[in-house]
Order: sequence, then structure tokens, then C-alpha cells
Amino acid sequence: MKNKSQIITIGDELLIGQVVNTNAAWLGSKLTELGFNVIKNISIHDNYNDIYNSIKQASQESELIIVIGGLGPTNDDITKTVLCKFFKSKLIRNKDVINHIQTIFSNRNLPLCNLNLQQADLPHNCTILYNELGTAPGMVFKNDKFLLISLPGVPFEMKNIFEKQLIPYLKNHFNLPPIISQTIMTCGIPESFLAEKLKDWENNLAVNNLSLAYLPQPGIIRLRITANQNRLNGNKLINNAIYKLKNIIPENIFAVGDTTFEEVIGKLLTKKKKTVCAAESCTGGYISHLLTSVPGSSNYFTGSVIAYSNSVKTRILKVNKQDIVNYGAVSKQVVLQMAKNIRNIFNTDFSIAVSGIAGPNGGTTEKPVGTVWITIASEKNVFTSKFMFGNDRIRNIIRASVCALDMLRKSIIY
Amino acid sequence: MKNKSQIITIGDELLIGQVVNTNAAWLGSKLTELGFNVIKNISIHDNYNDIYNSIKQASQESELIIVIGGLGPTNDDITKTVLCKFFKSKLIRNKDVINHIQTIFSNRNLPLCNLNLQQADLPHNCTILYNELGTAPGMVFKNDKFLLISLPGVPFEMKNIFEKQLIPYLKNHFNLPPIISQTIMTCGIPESFLAEKLKDWENNLAVNNLSLAYLPQPGIIRLRITANQNRLNGNKLINNAIYKLKNIIPENIFAVGDTTFEEVIGKLLTKKKKTVCAAESCTGGYISHLLTSVPGSSNYFTGSVIAYSNSVKTRILKVNKQDIVNYGAVSKQVVLQMAKNIRNIFNTDFSIAVSGIAGPNGGTTEKPVGTVWITIASEKNVFTSKFMFGNDRIRNIIRASVCALDMLRKSIIY
Repeated sequence: MKNKSQIITIGDELLIGQVVNTNAAWLGSKLTELGFNVIKNISIHDNYNDIYNSIKQASQESELIIVIGGLGPTNDDITKTVLCKFFKSKLIRNKDVINHIQTIFSNRNLPLCNLNLQQADLPHNCTILYNELGTAPGMVFKNDKFLLISLPGVPFEMKNIFEKQLIPYLKNHFNLPPIISQTIMTCGIPESFLAEKLKDWENNLAVNNLSLAYLPQPGIIRLRITANQNRLNGNKLINNAIYKLKNIIPENIFAVGDTTFEEVIGKLLTKKKKTVCAAESCTGGYISHLLTSVPGSSNYFTGSVIAYSNSVKTRILKVNKQDIVNYGAVSKQVVLQMAKNIRNIFNTDFSIAVSGIAGPNGGTTEKPVGTVWITIASEKNVFTSKFMFGNDRIRNIIRASVCALDMLRKSIIY
Repeated sequence: MKNKSQIITIGDELLIGQVVNTNAAWLGSKLTELGFNVIKNISIHDNYNDIYNSIKQASQESELIIVIGGLGPTNDDITKTVLCKFFKSKLIRNKDVINHIQTIFSNRNLPLCNLNLQQADLPHNCTILYNELGTAPGMVFKNDKFLLISLPGVPFEMKNIFEKQLIPYLKNHFNLPPIISQTIMTCGIPESFLAEKLKDWENNLAVNNLSLAYLPQPGIIRLRITANQNRLNGNKLINNAIYKLKNIIPENIFAVGDTTFEEVIGKLLTKKKKTVCAAESCTGGYISHLLTSVPGSSNYFTGSVIAYSNSVKTRILKVNKQDIVNYGAVSKQVVLQMAKNIRNIFNTDFSIAVSGIAGPNGGTTEKPVGTVWITIASEKNVFTSKFMFGNDRIRNIIRASVCALDMLRKSIIY
């Protein structure tokens, strides 16, 4: 196996769980796209021996090692010290980096402090990667066996250096045969049922030297098919497999390619020149947040009312007071009015309404925590569904939002 | 160093970056709380040799090894096979687990499939951890050198098994001297300035055998002080350090203890019996989502209007049309009206209003992407601030939301 790579992330905060390692995930996806085989991620402490030993072991396993973090201005950051020892290097203050740091601080009208200047002290035998968004540059160390790249741990600085400078560098330095893979986004079917339904199809994948992974997240299962073959044949085999899959679970596939409901909906609404708004109760703004996380969403999303209290439901959304008394705020009668009324008030083509009990409190025997009503209204149709989710508040909010977006998607393409 | 532990997470999806490793973060924080020293996290492929070798290496480094994932019903899951080989075990179908799986499926009115039944095939020489929320049980393998625990990768199943069964088991099995640490939540000051300001204080920590970590996230820096000492003395030293810190940066500390703005605000509003609502433009519902992610938030949060289009700003929030024409939607004049009017319409004690340009499009020379106006209104006061964030859409949404919640917090305690 060629082009092996591994990611070493440094920081106590990762091990004690105060920070989730999103950097490793982001880099993993980028390296995979480039054709690297990411064989391992390691997180270790800001500890001299741990860093030294991990780099040593990695240098025997991989041709590309990416070390993230430990380059900050504070005392707990010691990556540079270890790299100097490992590569028998010494620190030299770099004039270009000093100038850059001075420019950053004067642009922000901030006084320069000595800790920042120390970030310009860099190993003499590395290639320096300019960090336009921050003060700690990246570094490339090269020998005939492997390449080691050290990057700052601040996500947007790391990403910027990687995309602008490292992608061209790595493409040039390695002979990268692309790993071909495709992701199929599914929803509305639990993992074990999906696997049972796809058993024969999956066996057939193996025959064609394709591999399959199930990647579940709340309300969604991503299926990733991978071919470790040359580009032409791999793509063809994968496309054939997807064609067959679409016949087996036509209702459950919402996209081919790694995407999100909000992106799929954004494209559909843009294409059809339609608009949407929402009336959210238990999802508390999460549906609106998902929709507006897509750039350009202001073209099709006009806004929402988060109707958390009953008084907002009656006064702003004009839900009938007596219906709330008779049926409760979490009921078909109320969610229908929420959807129809917000669509009229906001004057959109589609509307989403959600009312439910996210928990952990507020459940009853009749309506336990996790009970959620969702309505999608348009000029032509009104679809309403009741869902029974689980006990976890955040999970209920996410699953209700995903189900609402799936219902909206079906309503748009209906 | 005693009570070393490490976490091995298994799954292609982690290495290729399709899933962020939140399990390792969650477990890391739980193990640290219990008094374990988490020395390493490793993520590897669903590959026989990689799993075997990682377990072997870990067994030489740590007394507690937690292996997460690879227990699903599908073909790519092979953790059980490797564990059988490593611990010289064989699979036996477990009757209790079969009964449990059958109950789960009949409760959900779902037919049972054969793949699910295979999850009841378990190594004969392990202790089985009952998985009440799913079909794959956890397993404990024990010898005189180390303890290995295998858990399912589905986060809520893993967490449930860990909290209900493993915490008592581990407390019983290990002699755990607690690691004492405390987190101080700060905002409104960049990392390098904070470090410069805290230089003398930080040096004094080292003298007292306390260590410090800076944990930045958008808009917030968490300072974690750790004492590796006996509980009594460690707590005293940390409390002294925090007392001194409060005198150095009184404006920037918003909480002691690992918490969030939304939790702090929830407690403040509950205590003062006050209510809040929001009028969000560029934050698109994220502030409402943060506020409602706290259980019990319906007691103080009545709701919001997400006013993404100008027509919602004028028609629902009654912002003066001519002011939008004259000053633009992203202006002091408009954000002030949004805050004052939503507070009247929703009849709350406090209101938040945000209008800005999240990007990547919509910026001008006068108002570049990242320009955000925020107003907090109450009966007594109205506070308005202009912020200049960066170019990243999601980051701008998060930073604007954090700043708005900080302004709200200050307004409540003012």
C-alpha cells in the first residue's frame, strides 16, 4: 500500500475531551480526496516524549505525517522544540515572518507583544509555510523516507495553509493514484434493515472489488462505496452499483454525493424559484439554522417564527386558542395551523411547522418525550406526520429537523 | 504515572473524515473526571491487522484500553473477530441478548433479521455489558496487566453503557486518585493578549505546581488549570489562582466551570424570573437554537422571529421601510428597531437583535462580509455594538451569536 499518511494532533484539550478533533476529520477528508491512504490518527499530550515517540513511530509507518497544534504563543506549546530535536535543527528568527506579524497587529490597531515575536523563531532546515491568517507559520521537513508537515491548530488558519499551499505541494511531491469513492445519502430506514435489504447487492459489490461502509448519523445513513482501482473503471463500477441501489431503495435515497438536506433543498428551491419559511416550536430554530448555513439561502428562505410559548403560537401564528386547550400544543390540529398560517403571513411557496416534546421534561403517558408533529404546507398540498423519537433532547431536535427537511424535499419534488 | 488509559476508535469513516470523532472527546472527558490519565487516542481502519496491532501496543502502554466501534450488524464490522483472536476466545450465541434483541424489535413492531441475531454471538471469556438502547452489547476482557473494554460506536448507546455500568465497574476495579482541574470561561480578548496579560500570573501557577491550558473556540477562550495533587490542597491552590485571575481580567470571565453562554444565561434568567426573545437576521436561528438547547428553556425563552428577508423585517418586526432604504438592513437604525419592536411584540423583559453580513456574498466596501450589528433591549437599557468578524460564513454566525449572548448576559447582570 502506497502513499500512507497519518495525522498527529497535539493538545491536552483533545485527550481530556474539552475540544472535539474536527481538524483530523477535515484533514482526513482532504488527504483522502488527494489519494492518500490515511492509516491512523493519533492524539497526544503536549508532552516532549509523547510527541517525539509518536513522530518516530509514524516515520516508520507512513510517507506523509501531518502534525497539528502546539504552535501557539503560550508556554504549553512545545511542538517546535521537539521538531528541532528530531530534525537536528536550531531556531532562527525569520525576518519575513516578523514583518508579517507586525503588519497583522498594526492592521488590527493592536500593540505587539513579545510572545507573538517568538512565533517568528523557526527551525533553520524546514520550508516555511506562510500563514496569512495568523502568526504561527507551518513547516515542512523533508528527507528521502518521509515528509513531515507541522501546522497550527487554529482550524481556519490550518485549512487556509493546507488549501492554498499544501495541496499543490503534495500533488507535486507524491505520485497520487486517486481513490475513487462515492457516497449515497439515505434516510427513513434503520441501519440493520438497510443492511438486510441490501445483502445481495452488497455481496455483488465485493465481487466487483468495491467496498461499502455504513455511516450513520441522527436520521441519516450515508453509504460509501470505494473502489481502489484506476479512475475510469472504478467510476464505472460505482455508477453501476448506484443504479442498482436506486431500484432497491428508491424512497430512501435523497442524494448521491456527500451533501446535506439543507444543500439539496437549497438547490431544489433555487432551481424551481420557490421560497420557504418555518414555524418552529420544539426544534427551537435549528431548522432555520440548517437552512441558513447554506450560502445564498436568502434567495429562497424568507424567515421563521420560533413559537416556543403558546402565546407566540396564538398571537403571532394565529393558532386557535381553544384548539391548544382541547388538543394541546403538540397535536395535529395545532401543527397544521402553524404551517398554514406562517405560509400566509410570510407569503412563501412552502412552509414547515414542527411541534413536539424535546425533553427531558414535559412528557406525559399519552405524549411521551420524543413525540413530534411535522407539517409541510404548499399551495397544492399539506402533508402531516407524527414521529416518535427517543429521550435525548439534542438528538430529538436534530432528528425532528432532519425529518422535517426530508418531508420538505419530497414535497418540493412531488 | 498510574492509571494510564487510551481510546482506540475503529472505523474508516473517522480516517477519511466523514465522521467527527465526538465519541473520543466524550469518553476522554469522562475518563479524566474519573481520575484516569488519557495518554493517547488512536483512530484506525476496520482492518484486522491494524486493530490487532493497536490493541497489542496499547496493552503495553496502558492499564485501561477502550475500543469503540466495529460492532455493528454489517460486514465491515470486525472488532469482535479480532478480540476473539487476541483473547483466544470463541463466539457463543447468548440467550439473554437474543431475548433482548427480540424484545426491542417486537416493541418497535419490526421484523427481526438474521444480521441482528448475529449480534448475540459473543466471546465466551468476556463480561457482557447489557446494551438497553441497542442490539450490540459491550464487552469487558480482563487480565492481570490491563482491562480492555469494547463498546458500540453509536454515541447514545456507548454513553448509556458507560454511565450506567462502566463508571461503577471502573471505580471498583482501579484505585483512582482524582485529577483536580477547573475551567474558567473567558471572552472578548484574543489568545495572545490574554497570554501576555496573564504572564506573571501564569508563572506563579507553575511555582505552585499547577498547569495551564488555553482552549480557544470561536469567540471564547477556556482556561483550564490542573493540579496533579491530593484533592484538598489542589482545590485550594486552584481557587486561589482563580481569585487572583478575577482581579486581572474581571470583564472577560463569564463563568467558572466548563459551561456555555446559553447555560449561564438560562440560570441568570431563571433566578431573576426574566424572559427573553430574539430577532435574528444573519445568525439565522442559531441564537435561538443555542438558547433552546438548554433543558427547561421554555421557562424564559418565548420565541423569535428569524427576519431573513427585508419584508419580514418591515411587516412582522415593523422596521421602518425608509430606514432600510436609507441606512441598509445592516445598520444601527435597523437593528435598534428590530430589538425594541420584537421585545414589544413578544412581551419579554429582554430582547436580542442581530443584523449582519455572514458571507461569502453580500459585502461591500463600506460594509464588508463580517460586519454585524447587535442590540440588546430591556425596559431600562438599550445596548448596541458593531462587530467586524471575518470571511467564514459559519464562523461569523457562531461569533455573532456568542457576542450577542455575552451582551445579553452583561445586560441581565447590569
